[in-house]
Amino acid sequence: MPDSLNNLLTALKPQFADRLLTSDAAREHHGSGESHLTPAWPDAIVMVQSTEEVSDVLAACTCYGVPVIPFGAGSSIEGQIHAPHGGISLDMSAMHAILSVQDTDMDCTVQCGVTRQALNEHLRVTGLFFPVELGAHATLGGIAATRASGTTTVRYGSMRDLVLGMTIVMPDGEIIKTGGRARKSSAGYDLTRLFIGSEGTLGVITELNLRLFGVPEATQTAMCSFATIEDATQTVVMALQCGLSLNRIELADRLQMQAINRYSKTDLPESPTLWVELTGAPATVENDMEVFEGLAETASRFDRATTAEDASRLWRVRHDALYASRALRPGIKGISTDVCVPISQLPAIISEIQDVIATTSIQAPLVGHVGDGNFHLVLLYDPENQDEAQEARHINTQLVEMALKMGGTCTGEHGVGLGKKAYLTAEHGPALGVMRRIRNALDPDNIMNPGKIFDL
Amino acid sequence: MPDSLNNLLTALKPQFADRLLTSDAAREHHGSGESHLTPAWPDAIVMVQSTEEVSDVLAACTCYGVPVIPFGAGSSIEGQIHAPHGGISLDMSAMHAILSVQDTDMDCTVQCGVTRQALNEHLRVTGLFFPVELGAHATLGGIAATRASGTTTVRYGSMRDLVLGMTIVMPDGEIIKTGGRARKSSAGYDLTRLFIGSEGTLGVITELNLRLFGVPEATQTAMCSFATIEDATQTVVMALQCGLSLNRIELADRLQMQAINRYSKTDLPESPTLWVELTGAPATVENDMEVFEGLAETASRFDRATTAEDASRLWRVRHDALYASRALRPGIKGISTDVCVPISQLPAIISEIQDVIATTSIQAPLVGHVGDGNFHLVLLYDPENQDEAQEARHINTQLVEMALKMGGTCTGEHGVGLGKKAYLTAEHGPALGVMRRIRNALDPDNIMNPGKIFDL
Ligand SMILES: Cc1cc2nc3c(=O)[nH]c(=O)nc-3n(C[C@H](O)[C@H](O)[C@H](O)COP(=O)(O)OP(=O)(O)OC[C@H]3O[C@@H](n4cnc5c(N)ncnc54)[C@H](O)[C@@H]3O)c2cc1C
Ligand SMILES: Cc1cc2nc3c(=O)[nH]c(=O)nc-3n(C[C@H](O)[C@H](O)[C@H](O)COP(=O)(O)OP(=O)(O)OC[C@H]3O[C@@H](n4cnc5c(N)ncnc54)[C@H](O)[C@@H]3O)c2cc1C
Repeated sequence: MPDSLNNLLTALKPQFADRLLTSDAAREHHGSGESHLTPAWPDAIVMVQSTEEVSDVLAACTCYGVPVIPFGAGSSIEGQIHAPHGGISLDMSAMHAILSVQDTDMDCTVQCGVTRQALNEHLRVTGLFFPVELGAHATLGGIAATRASGTTTVRYGSMRDLVLGMTIVMPDGEIIKTGGRARKSSAGYDLTRLFIGSEGTLGVITELNLRLFGVPEATQTAMCSFATIEDATQTVVMALQCGLSLNRIELADRLQMQAINRYSKTDLPESPTLWVELTGAPATVENDMEVFEGLAETASRFDRATTAEDASRLWRVRHDALYASRALRPGIKGISTDVCVPISQLPAIISEIQDVIATTSIQAPLVGHVGDGNFHLVLLYDPENQDEAQEARHINTQLVEMALKMGGTCTGEHGVGLGKKAYLTAEHGPALGVMRRIRNALDPDNIMNPGKIFDL
Repeated sequence: MPDSLNNLLTALKPQFADRLLTSDAAREHHGSGESHLTPAWPDAIVMVQSTEEVSDVLAACTCYGVPVIPFGAGSSIEGQIHAPHGGISLDMSAMHAILSVQDTDMDCTVQCGVTRQALNEHLRVTGLFFPVELGAHATLGGIAATRASGTTTVRYGSMRDLVLGMTIVMPDGEIIKTGGRARKSSAGYDLTRLFIGSEGTLGVITELNLRLFGVPEATQTAMCSFATIEDATQTVVMALQCGLSLNRIELADRLQMQAINRYSKTDLPESPTLWVELTGAPATVENDMEVFEGLAETASRFDRATTAEDASRLWRVRHDALYASRALRPGIKGISTDVCVPISQLPAIISEIQDVIATTSIQAPLVGHVGDGNFHLVLLYDPENQDEAQEARHINTQLVEMALKMGGTCTGEHGVGLGKKAYLTAEHGPALGVMRRIRNALDPDNIMNPGKIFDL
């Protein structure tokens, strides 16, 4: 253990006592997360309880030149919480207070360690909810730090759109507040949006002001099958242009539907499928579902849920899609691709990548947030098998190249971490240099999550 | 004329010929804009026609250490286009090409000098439109640079929410692209949002990718009067919580209504008034207007437009509100305040500021984008009269202090420029230092619109 680290731990010990962890179990947990990448353990973990404690730890880390990696729930999948240069994992999960809810203003203030599930549980009595919905158990700080999103982005936007302001601790320990509680402001640079998606490389988010929404009165759900991805996409484009009250619109491909049938013991058509959920006033969703059914004229089958149980039965298979995929090859977790393209390019990119996949031994079922042009292939490969690993890398790289050529991005929602760093030069060109200058200006000692997003 | 400027003009002359202007008329036009502040002329104006030309001018300005002030339509009102340190006004208005419209993806690419009116005119045949609507003739580059918004923000968000990507020229002439055409991305820092609202202090926006929306099928309009601002606000809060398909919801106070009656020769109730516009599918807006009328139970009068002519008659008086205000005191233009607060605070701040106004000799009618908590008082004072000018400053300062105490902002949409600089320390505290570090990192020679947002 180098001197600097030793000195840091000695300095922190009196203040944090048994909230300073160095056990292998804790280090392992904090150095692997949900990523497919080789774990890289931090040297120690500090469980913080307040903004002031975060400030103390960051000031000490700057003083001793030791890296700090903020840790929310560890659910990120591109190695974001890995510690390739060692250092302190700053565990935010004990900062889980919901500080205030303002019904009238439809906003709330939470500590960063609150999960979206806990927030929505707390909000239930108010008739309000927070609409970012993703497939993992994650903290709102982590969701903001990765600019995450999910099935309801088509309606409410991503984390980028729903944070009004934040409390942030800068690398030297300075505490700042960005934004505020006003719905909009033109007062200077948008620091809130700069920190959203910065993956812990600029500072630590300790509190967030979030926009809330009224729970819609009514819901309509349907599931429909198409002969081709193109027919499905075309239906979605028309629904978007008509401004239908879409809450979720999800796509699965043929292989995914085969996996679902096998896993969920269903008998669904094994062809490209859309799930659609409309929410709003009863008259609106009733009308919009009629319109949607009309637009889906190329659908070979259209199942409209008539009861809440019906609807949750339709959604259940979508929610289980990841497990269904994994069951195609037991023991293999797979890795998830994450490109996002202009929606018009979806049929082309899916068909092109399926041609590439066909030249490999890999199975790769597809699900997508089709309204946003974002989709995931689960690449089912055995990481121990060098040939398969090479094939999986090949597919992912090809896919990213296709997406960039179409004006898209290498990551729609999962973030960069370690896993997507290699693609950023191709995606951003000289803009990456501008990002790096911002990073150097705000974290001159390079202590915040070093090696993520950028090479050192 | 200092040597550096002389040398710069000599260097630029061969390339720009008669697009390099130094006449007093051109300098005056480019150094006053719509602001109430004392004009400050640039030394010269360069009319650019391409991103490459912008790059050439910026590289030359960096080389000679001469300030550059981007100029869109000059409609900003806080002195944003003033040249307090002289230099070059970079006139972007000739960059007015609409480069492409992608119907399927509902986006478009435009040069920065395109006005929103020109864009919507061009889009008419497509059934799509760009929804940022403000009360001025402004360029999309200027609208982005000030993070502007307007009456439809309650539905579609502000400029912040609607730009997918941009082409930007950095102060040293480097050309970068931010964002892209994907609906969402988690690939690195959000440079797009950093440049939106940066008021020309970080670089020059030359192209923008913008989101478009389908023109809604149906519209319902109503105007209703309340005994108090509180009753009006309460109605709006309920409408927001119900998620009604609000497109615009605008507020005027008693004095504004008196001004309107006098100017527009109408006989409207002289009490707090809401204009509401719902847009969407016919069934939706029909249903939502019923609901809204039910929510507006405290309204003393509720006029629902039954024809398109009816609707435009109701809106006409709202659109003429500024002229109606000015007609209260002929010859006086007035200045517009611009605070934005959490909506629950609207009744309190309006009543508190009206108490302050009552202690002065100033008349100050109010209109507001009430759904966002943003409102404007037109302070009708004579800038030649020192006492009145002092009173107007007092009102504005008091108002900003109240807004900040309530979690709001000194400017909801007009921006900082020179006029709001003094309030930023109070609003942002140490976060202002972080903004300044970003500014120093990206514009180390301080040539981009120096003296705006920050003191030098
Ligand atoms: C099964 C599964 C499904 C998933 N589904 C989705 C999905 O639908 N949509 C989606 O977008 N993602 C999804 N993900 C990815 C993951 O859930 C998200 O990236 C999530 O936002 C991470 O949150 P977290 O709290 O776990 O953060 P962590 O994994 O702990 O951290 C993520 C990054 O944020 C930083 N960070 C965390 N907290 C803070 C803080 N307070 N301040 C500053 N930086 C911080 C960390 O340093 C790290 O760089 C999924 C993952 C899994 C395993
Ligand atoms: C009658 C009236 C009504 C108004 N109503 C509204 C309203 O409803 N909502 C609202 O938000 N504002 C309103 N405004 C203010 C004004 O219209 C906006 O600030 C508008 O966004 C300015 O656009 P512009 O093209 O005129 O920019 P300019 O005034 O020319 O420039 C504004 C700022 O942006 C910078 N800039 C301009 N172009 C670029 C570029 N291409 N790259 C980088 N920086 C650039 C300039 O340097 C300057 O700092 C109103 C103004 C008036 C006079």
